[in-house]
Amino acid sequence: MSRRIQIGVVGGREASSEVLKLAEEVGREIARRGAVLVCGGLGGVMEAACRGAKEEGGTTVGILPVLSAEKANPYVDIPIATGMGVARNVIIIHSCDGVIAVGGKYGTLSEMAFAKQRGIPLVSLKSWEFDKSVVSAESPEEAVSIVFQQIGMK
Amino acid sequence: MSRRIQIGVVGGREASSEVLKLAEEVGREIARRGAVLVCGGLGGVMEAACRGAKEEGGTTVGILPVLSAEKANPYVDIPIATGMGVARNVIIIHSCDGVIAVGGKYGTLSEMAFAKQRGIPLVSLKSWEFDKSVVSAESPEEAVSIVFQQIGMK
Amino acid sequence: MSRRIQIGVVGGREASSEVLKLAEEVGREIARRGAVLVCGGLGGVMEAACRGAKEEGGTTVGILPVLSAEKANPYVDIPIATGMGVARNVIIIHSCDGVIAVGGKYGTLSEMAFAKQRGIPLVSLKSWEFDKSVVSAESPEEAVSIVFQQIGMK
Amino acid sequence: MSRRIQIGVVGGREASSEVLKLAEEVGREIARRGAVLVCGGLGGVMEAACRGAKEEGGTTVGILPVLSAEKANPYVDIPIATGMGVARNVIIIHSCDGVIAVGGKYGTLSEMAFAKQRGIPLVSLKSWEFDKSVVSAESPEEAVSIVFQQIGMK
Repeated sequence: MSRRIQIGVVGGREASSEVLKLAEEVGREIARRGAVLVCGGLGGVMEAACRGAKEEGGTTVGILPVLSAEKANPYVDIPIATGMGVARNVIIIHSCDGVIAVGGKYGTLSEMAFAKQRGIPLVSLKSWEFDKSVVSAESPEEAVSIVFQQIGMK
Repeated sequence: MSRRIQIGVVGGREASSEVLKLAEEVGREIARRGAVLVCGGLGGVMEAACRGAKEEGGTTVGILPVLSAEKANPYVDIPIATGMGVARNVIIIHSCDGVIAVGGKYGTLSEMAFAKQRGIPLVSLKSWEFDKSVVSAESPEEAVSIVFQQIGMK
Repeated sequence: MSRRIQIGVVGGREASSEVLKLAEEVGREIARRGAVLVCGGLGGVMEAACRGAKEEGGTTVGILPVLSAEKANPYVDIPIATGMGVARNVIIIHSCDGVIAVGGKYGTLSEMAFAKQRGIPLVSLKSWEFDKSVVSAESPEEAVSIVFQQIGMK
Repeated sequence: MSRRIQIGVVGGREASSEVLKLAEEVGREIARRGAVLVCGGLGGVMEAACRGAKEEGGTTVGILPVLSAEKANPYVDIPIATGMGVARNVIIIHSCDGVIAVGGKYGTLSEMAFAKQRGIPLVSLKSWEFDKSVVSAESPEEAVSIVFQQIGMK
């Protein structure tokens, strides 16, 4: 299969400026490695990550909870409007080869849980550590690096 | 509103005999209080809880991930066949006035996360405690008692 | 399996008084035969059918597109709040042993299409006839009678 | 909004060679106009349309009913794995600015019904004509032309 790797970035709509900077750098790093960024398509961490990816010429997909593609943040190339609310969290996780969680609250926790259930690479960057099996990273570069390494080993 | 209270019971398809006993007693206690039990409709904790509820003459709803109602455990009165896989976890949580988690792994964690996100009463019985805000109970009676108390205060 | 047969009633939120009367009688007839009525849980045809079923002491399930069970019509015993918009149409069809369409527009057409795709008994009562294979009934009694007959033959 | 227009192509997994040729040409024409092609990501009409779009250097999105992106046809650039079965039909329609139905059976009928319900441009090419309001086209070029014209008028 020659299609590009798809990396999910999950995190909250509201985030501190520190977390937003991390998310933006995660997005840049994903784009530099030629992968597609998949996220929930809204603001906060999602928007920061998409902005970073677009700065590096990457491709961004936003899987929205709402009915209208117009609600996507301006850095989403391809909006997928599910109209299914938080059930779209499941679709984000199923559509990724690996996931990076940046900050976030309960929605992010649900996505991390689905990633563990599915058994795909998952890295926490200033996010939940609900389990000893959750791998944490200290920096965006490390987070992206670990996810790609784990995808490569599959 | 005169309709009956609906209580979700979430937990794994595979569980120890200790956890199954707890789930069965949770089901009994929910039925004794006249509430409808809502669960994922499959085996393990779901089946034990439904069996307990039926022993006390209760009503049970199983929101299944699969396409066919025939996959419901034999103690489900009303099977809802979503065909949506784990996205049905979201529907279980939206359809409850309160939730009790009994044991469980990552699927259960996703359901607890959605319950916290939605802000409905949630009690952990030998399940995840990912957050200081998660209330834990020591026994099935206490778990059900806390959930009803919190619903009553809303 | 001893669980009760589940019959779906699909149709629009807005309907003529003639169509509402038909829906109510369909609901009554389903309850008289001891089956559970499954519908979309909102107003119009859904509410009329549920009211009819409750007049005869039946059981009603409303699979709602919205997040809140409080939006269910007052004749719904068991609200299932999907929060998934029209994707809940799929769940209604998967959760029935047979379906009766009463009036309705495009939402109803989608539900009839899913019923044909799934291959379950489907009867049109003053509703769409998009295909020679769609069976039409002249009265509520006939509609319910045909659906039960076809379920029995499976 | 500067994002590209997204056009849905819906139709069956099994189709005659005539219908497959039409679908491929529809895909080509969508790509020539610079739009993104959105489809169900599987075989038959979906694969033919994606192949056509890729021949013209277009971008293709496949919204899959299954859990695994590996089930996408080889001409899908961006697989979205919903794991939600036919509920993904809803997501296809919500994610398009306009839809072209090519051949197809009941699944396609459900998608056309959702497009009418949502009120987006819809053209039938050798597909269902369940309603006087359904616009039919005689050729792939005409189908794509009508959809773009109707999108432009919105």
